[in-house]
Amino acid sequence: MIGKTLDQLKIGDAEQFSKTIAESDIYLFAGITGDLNPAHIDEEHAKNTRFEKRIAHGILVGGLISSVIGMKLPGPGSIYREQQYKFLAPVFIGDTITARVEVAELIPEKNKIVLQTTCVNQDGKVVIDGSAVIHPPLKK
Amino acid sequence: MIGKTLDQLKIGDAEQFSKTIAESDIYLFAGITGDLNPAHIDEEHAKNTRFEKRIAHGILVGGLISSVIGMKLPGPGSIYREQQYKFLAPVFIGDTITARVEVAELIPEKNKIVLQTTCVNQDGKVVIDGSAVIHPPLKK
Amino acid sequence: MIGKTLDQLKIGDAEQFSKTIAESDIYLFAGITGDLNPAHIDEEHAKNTRFEKRIAHGILVGGLISSVIGMKLPGPGSIYREQQYKFLAPVFIGDTITARVEVAELIPEKNKIVLQTTCVNQDGKVVIDGSAVIHPPLKK
Amino acid sequence: MIGKTLDQLKIGDAEQFSKTIAESDIYLFAGITGDLNPAHIDEEHAKNTRFEKRIAHGILVGGLISSVIGMKLPGPGSIYREQQYKFLAPVFIGDTITARVEVAELIPEKNKIVLQTTCVNQDGKVVIDGSAVIHPPLKK
Repeated sequence: MIGKTLDQLKIGDAEQFSKTIAESDIYLFAGITGDLNPAHIDEEHAKNTRFEKRIAHGILVGGLISSVIGMKLPGPGSIYREQQYKFLAPVFIGDTITARVEVAELIPEKNKIVLQTTCVNQDGKVVIDGSAVIHPPLKK
Repeated sequence: MIGKTLDQLKIGDAEQFSKTIAESDIYLFAGITGDLNPAHIDEEHAKNTRFEKRIAHGILVGGLISSVIGMKLPGPGSIYREQQYKFLAPVFIGDTITARVEVAELIPEKNKIVLQTTCVNQDGKVVIDGSAVIHPPLKK
Repeated sequence: MIGKTLDQLKIGDAEQFSKTIAESDIYLFAGITGDLNPAHIDEEHAKNTRFEKRIAHGILVGGLISSVIGMKLPGPGSIYREQQYKFLAPVFIGDTITARVEVAELIPEKNKIVLQTTCVNQDGKVVIDGSAVIHPPLKK
Repeated sequence: MIGKTLDQLKIGDAEQFSKTIAESDIYLFAGITGDLNPAHIDEEHAKNTRFEKRIAHGILVGGLISSVIGMKLPGPGSIYREQQYKFLAPVFIGDTITARVEVAELIPEKNKIVLQTTCVNQDGKVVIDGSAVIHPPLKK
């Protein structure tokens, strides 16, 4: 089980993964990270915020991008070097998020690639935009 | 429960949060994100990687930064706009990570601040470096 | 805490356990097993399937049978040798499932019993049918 | 995201998935199913059993087979009809299990396939043997 090496990739290659965000995802993520910000876990507090209900942690949603990178593009054996997220819109309990990763740049002399990374909700709204820098696995 | 507004902050203000990373953190994060990359959940596979044992997901570790931002600096009411991570070293099961957030820049005309964000392990090694852009809560 | 030995059992003895299946059960089971099939975790995908919404993993539901065997009939000390499941109908988030185990056959010379094992939903519909082969605990 | 249809499969096709079984997997599975048999969650009790330490639930380990079926062979869109498990050896915390699924029989007139399903530990010992009956996804 090994991911794609740099010479098996070309600009525009893309993969994705979709998941409906459950309340339990948010609560477990809160427990794992200690981010118990009331925006995520206190519905009464959230009613009085601009979003009016509990929202998912941005980094939780961004984690779906990590899943596509680690599982599919380039996949196992990749080394994650950088990730940049721009959080553009809130994600609510029950939203279905599609994380999409697309090869934007190949830097063969450093065995490095740049990926465009986005998360889109069920209405097609981009909730996260950003990019990642990855070392794809090397040939065995 | 409300975080600090921009005029309550000054450059150099800092907060931190520490946690020992458990196997269960990694396994739950894998389930939440779908990132079942064998580097994280397959010890036999991991033995043959450069890290020689299972490592935590970089984004899981980065989530501790989100915790400091959402809980302490600026705290509840903040809007997370951007996060950039550089993953500098692996995190293993049992490592104790301290996430630290420091105010690097204040942009009052946009109610925006820039934070330097780092994660350090129990040996003082920086495992993640990066920065965040935040809208602190507004005065009520 | 010890379960029933073979000579404390007779054909027709039965026990059961009921649980409402939560979204969090499905999401945690997905993480434990790696079964992130969109039928279980992607509501948008599920809308276009024959079941029209997310369904529980069959093996998750079957696990309730394991619970009755390990906890009640015969209970602690049993050795689970075989389980056969027939999945007859889907289980949705919020369904209440009753797992029922009934002694169907006693094979004293091998300290072995055969159990009929079923799971029924809140409407009385059989969702799983099957059988198990168990070594009950031996006398101390 | 759609799995393989019957005419894309042939006898002998195989896929697998590996995971190191964590204590947290066992504890979460216990919570999900209610199977709190002391053999799984009571180390003091387990010391006095034939296995001498806590063992994973057989059905938890069998769930890895479900993962291969739902994710890879045939993959999304499959309907799980039957599963038979023979539990041949105990699985302990820290064991790395490889679930393997192989096409054993094709029944095109019923859009049905039979899979041989096994789980093997890190020492090559078969811990579960069995078979599954599946309806692969139909052509769109």
